[in-house]
Amino acid sequence: MINPQTLKGFRDFLPQEARKRQFVINTLKSVFELYGFEPLETPALEYEEILAGKYGDEGDQLMYRFIDRGGRKIAMRYDQTVPLARVVAQYQNASTGSAQSLPMPFKRYQIQSVWRAENTQKGRYREFLQCDADIVGVDSKLADAETIATAAKGLETLGFNNFTIYINDRRVFSELTANNLITEEEMRVAVVAIDKLKKIGELGVIDELNSKGLSVGRAREILRLIKEREKTDVIRDIDSYLDSLPELKKKCKFDPTLARGLNYYTGVIFEIEVEGYSAGSVCGGGRYDNLIGMFTNLQIPAVGFAFGFDRLIEAMDELNLFPSEIALSTTQVLVSVFAEELKNKSLEIVTKLRDENIPSEMYLGEIKEKNPLEKQLKYADQKQIPYVVILGPDEAEKNILTLKDLNTREQTQMTLDEIVKKFKV
Amino acid sequence: MINPQTLKGFRDFLPQEARKRQFVINTLKSVFELYGFEPLETPALEYEEILAGKYGDEGDQLMYRFIDRGGRKIAMRYDQTVPLARVVAQYQNASTGSAQSLPMPFKRYQIQSVWRAENTQKGRYREFLQCDADIVGVDSKLADAETIATAAKGLETLGFNNFTIYINDRRVFSELTANNLITEEEMRVAVVAIDKLKKIGELGVIDELNSKGLSVGRAREILRLIKEREKTDVIRDIDSYLDSLPELKKKCKFDPTLARGLNYYTGVIFEIEVEGYSAGSVCGGGRYDNLIGMFTNLQIPAVGFAFGFDRLIEAMDELNLFPSEIALSTTQVLVSVFAEELKNKSLEIVTKLRDENIPSEMYLGEIKEKNPLEKQLKYADQKQIPYVVILGPDEAEKNILTLKDLNTREQTQMTLDEIVKKFKV
Repeated sequence: MINPQTLKGFRDFLPQEARKRQFVINTLKSVFELYGFEPLETPALEYEEILAGKYGDEGDQLMYRFIDRGGRKIAMRYDQTVPLARVVAQYQNASTGSAQSLPMPFKRYQIQSVWRAENTQKGRYREFLQCDADIVGVDSKLADAETIATAAKGLETLGFNNFTIYINDRRVFSELTANNLITEEEMRVAVVAIDKLKKIGELGVIDELNSKGLSVGRAREILRLIKEREKTDVIRDIDSYLDSLPELKKKCKFDPTLARGLNYYTGVIFEIEVEGYSAGSVCGGGRYDNLIGMFTNLQIPAVGFAFGFDRLIEAMDELNLFPSEIALSTTQVLVSVFAEELKNKSLEIVTKLRDENIPSEMYLGEIKEKNPLEKQLKYADQKQIPYVVILGPDEAEKNILTLKDLNTREQTQMTLDEIVKKFKV
Repeated sequence: MINPQTLKGFRDFLPQEARKRQFVINTLKSVFELYGFEPLETPALEYEEILAGKYGDEGDQLMYRFIDRGGRKIAMRYDQTVPLARVVAQYQNASTGSAQSLPMPFKRYQIQSVWRAENTQKGRYREFLQCDADIVGVDSKLADAETIATAAKGLETLGFNNFTIYINDRRVFSELTANNLITEEEMRVAVVAIDKLKKIGELGVIDELNSKGLSVGRAREILRLIKEREKTDVIRDIDSYLDSLPELKKKCKFDPTLARGLNYYTGVIFEIEVEGYSAGSVCGGGRYDNLIGMFTNLQIPAVGFAFGFDRLIEAMDELNLFPSEIALSTTQVLVSVFAEELKNKSLEIVTKLRDENIPSEMYLGEIKEKNPLEKQLKYADQKQIPYVVILGPDEAEKNILTLKDLNTREQTQMTLDEIVKKFKV
């Protein structure tokens, strides 16, 4: 007998969990579309050469790769940014107006799984959903501001009220090296260490820099130099756009120590932290003007962000932001079956409810002669179905139905039309 | 330079195509939920032993398989039925009421990609979406009827009006062998040949049987024996349930020559053909009572069906069932930007529209001094955005906006509140 199990780091989503995921996906999609982003889907498998070498040594290590039966070197989707770069290169020059051309600026969102052979640990999986929105083809501070506004609206629509958007500009670091205040080499280790400031504190950062060969005094000096930096022109421009969005502006905070690990960012960077959820930021992004052009000889500017999907779900669970299980469960009514000979009548009732667009189902299991409803009510409870329609011999004789509210356990006699009226929105 | 290309048999879905897919997925989901099916997601990767040997020699041949860095033998999802069987085995015995237990009967739908290294040809891909709904745990003709009703409702909701549901019972074949009218060996080849009856005609079937070693006379006899079979008891039972669904019953047709290739079916089988679309059936399913128990020692009955997602899209395209591109495109309004100094004002307008839940975007590209709107109107046309809000110096002075209808090219002066009222649903 084969043991029924999933691979380490891979998950099944049973209905209760799948519904929550659907709720978050649908909410974010609607926000992305409200802001003019369009959907894009790319394949799970790509030629290995498309993905290899794009994510550093770690990425090459963690990428799922194999050779197919045709001898092709294949890799599984590792993120959604490199495939976006491929798409932009592949279709950008298609003649305008054809089905296969991209409008520029190209605002796309993409919500697909990616695969990484990570060491599994709490909250880290080998298959997980990425949830990206990017604006490709414009080097505009307005696009930067739009990106931040979209991310914030996504969180608000999911029900998050208190969050902070930490904003920085990569030029904070590059100006310090350009001015010879910090060497390139020092900055490389400083960016990695300072990225952990919120987690390990200033002393932790200084320790780490020290362990990388800098003296404690120099480490302190570097930290001070970064912390003292003032807003760059880019940040000031974004600020002036945010004057038109005062509610959003209140949530934004310039933070010269925000580093973000990925070294492909070239301009504004941001991360969003939710109050009351301590596992880390739920959203991050920034401008990366040198990445999308990797498959062309062109420089193609881009700015975008990604939600940490699993973290969003965890934060919403912790802060109780999901609608109740009953609200997430779509089925409103279970039409029970009292006896074999009443099946057709029950089928007519459930058909009427469905024709009126009321999500409902009919009990399909075996009908016990003794206590026929017991198991059916239990089934409704287990599936979080809030109401049961009962059509027993009494009801059939009187041409009426009984509606049982499983929450209050109250029963009311009603006609089918009255039941339809009650549930119809 | 790396050539930006996708693997043979794999597809990108750019926004125009992705929107159509979303439309079909959302419609089918809503129907599945209307009928009480719940969502399930399973991983893209499974232990090879879970999938290997479950799909015959062809399946083992076409399955994407590899060894991961941990030395595990891995296979990519090949269909959604074997993973369903694993899920039922894995969670069925979990204590009732825990987050990880399945209600029985378990009605689940699943819409995920599968991968098969097929020979690519028109309409056949190596990555494609499967769209399944199944009822597990009950051996009930009512469940058979519900399955057929769900499939039909899915098609109707997508806009298909004229389709035929061909229904048969696998017992039509097994009774013929049980009665020694056709040998087991003859039936094996007969089922394969008769499956192609609609495509190759009776003469084609007889030819094929002849080529498999049967005499032409015997082949004719076998075809006649099958064609003459009458409805089984199961079909009669389903028929009697369909009496309660007269509109559906009109579309159903008993067809003793319907075979369906897969040999795992044990009872009712059905296929749906759409009038005016000749590439084949768009939906098929049936009862398979010996498959779901493969990972347990139990017999677990099941009935279900799958839509051919790519065929659905093709049929909808051919029959013109998709809403217009403009209706599928969600963005209603492009707020144009006439000049740098008007950017903040435009940002306020687009924010107001979004706050009122009107999907809209602001032009983010460079603003040309000469003819600033030309490129922006072209962008709106390309993205199928039906309206453009114009705020030029004239409008700014008069504190009014111009709304341009890109379909009629008409322009109307309106206040922002009037524009909101026009688009708000």
